Amino acid sequence: MKLYTHEQAPNPRRVHIFLREKQIKVETVQVDFMKGELKGEEFTKKNPAQRIPVLELDGGTCISETVAICRYFEEMYPLRPLFGLTAVERATVEMWNRRTELNFLMPVFHVFRHGHPAMAELEKPQIEEWSKANRPKAIEGLAMINDQLEKKQFVAGDRFSIADISAYVGVKFCRPAKVDIPEGLDGLQRWLKVMEERPSIAAKATSPA
Amino acid sequence: MKLYTHEQAPNPRRVHIFLREKQIKVETVQVDFMKGELKGEEFTKKNPAQRIPVLELDGGTCISETVAICRYFEEMYPLRPLFGLTAVERATVEMWNRRTELNFLMPVFHVFRHGHPAMAELEKPQIEEWSKANRPKAIEGLAMINDQLEKKQFVAGDRFSIADISAYVGVKFCRPAKVDIPEGLDGLQRWLKVMEERPSIAAKATSPA
Repeated sequence: MKLYTHEQAPNPRRVHIFLREKQIKVETVQVDFMKGELKGEEFTKKNPAQRIPVLELDGGTCISETVAICRYFEEMYPLRPLFGLTAVERATVEMWNRRTELNFLMPVFHVFRHGHPAMAELEKPQIEEWSKANRPKAIEGLAMINDQLEKKQFVAGDRFSIADISAYVGVKFCRPAKVDIPEGLDGLQRWLKVMEERPSIAAKATSPA
Repeated sequence: MKLYTHEQAPNPRRVHIFLREKQIKVETVQVDFMKGELKGEEFTKKNPAQRIPVLELDGGTCISETVAICRYFEEMYPLRPLFGLTAVERATVEMWNRRTELNFLMPVFHVFRHGHPAMAELEKPQIEEWSKANRPKAIEGLAMINDQLEKKQFVAGDRFSIADISAYVGVKFCRPAKVDIPEGLDGLQRWLKVMEERPSIAAKATSPA
C-alpha cells in the first residue's frame, strides 16, 4: 500500500494527521504538485482528477479524495474511531465535517487559488473577484465553528473527530491564503491550543505518515 | 422524526430518492426556501447554515447536510446498502460520491446560482464570471462520470449507490442551470435510461418521502 502525497499541502495533511491519530504507518511517495507531476499519464491513471492524496492498495486499486482515504482506514482499523460510533454520532461527524469543508475550508481554498499569483498556472481562469467574495464567507464559516467550540469541546461535539482535523488544517491555511482570523473567537482559540498539543499535530510534517 | 425539505430542490431530492430506495417513510415538513423561511429564527436554530434538508430527530437533535442525513438512515437501516459494504467498497462509494459532488454537482450549482436572475437575492455577491467559468468544469465532470459509466454499470462500480443519486440529480439540474449535455456520452445515456426506470426516481416528486 502506498500513499501519494505532499504533506505541506492541506488535503494530504488531513490524511497524515488522521493516520498519526490512528497510529497507522503507511509507505509514502512524495509528489511535487508544483512541478506538474500530477498531470503525467501514469498519475492520471491513478486519479483522473489529477490531485493528491491518492492511496494505492496492494492490488492496484486507487482511492482518491481525502475523506474517502480516511474512511478506508477507519473501516480497516476501527480502533480510535474518528468518524463517530453510534448512528447519531456518525451523522453528526459527517455533518460537521461537511459544514467545515463547505463553509470554511473551501472558501479559504478559493481565496488562495483565485487570489495568489503562484496559483495562476493551476487555476484557470483565475477570478480575483471570486477570491474576494470568498474572504467574508471564510470568516463566516470560522464564526460558525467558533460558536460550536464555545459550547462543545470539539467541532463535532464531545469527541475528537475528522471534523477537527478538517477545521485545524483550514485554520492553518488561513495564513498562506491571507485570511485574517478575527479577534474575540475565544472558543476557537481555546480549541486551537488543545489541537497544537496533540502528538498527531505537534509531529513534524516530515516524519513518516 | 421530521424531514424539513422541498423536493423540487436538488439536495433535498437526493434524500427523497435515497429514502425511497431504502423504503423508509418519514414525516416531511415542506419549507419554501424562496419565501425566506430558511432565514427565520426558528429554522436557523435547526440549521445555522439556513439550508434544507434538515432531519429533526424525536429528541430534538437536528442533522443537516444531505449526505449526513443519508448516512444516518444507512446506519439505522442497513438493509439495501447505498454506501457500500466492504472497506474498499465504502471508500470507493465515498470517492465517487465526492468526485461527483466536487467536479460535477457543485459546478452545476455555481453556474445556476451565479448566473440565474432569480438567484440574485440568495447568492450575494452574484458573480457572472464565476458562473461562466463553471460551465466547462461541469462538462468536464460529466465527461469523467461518462468515462466511468462506459466501463462500469453504476457510478461507483457494479452496485447502485448514493453516488448514482448525486450524479442523477446533477444531470437533471443541468436543464434549469442551462448546461447543455454534450452528445456522444453513450455511457451516461445508457445509465440515465436505467436510472429513469428505478421506482425511487420514477415516483412523483409529490409522493411522501
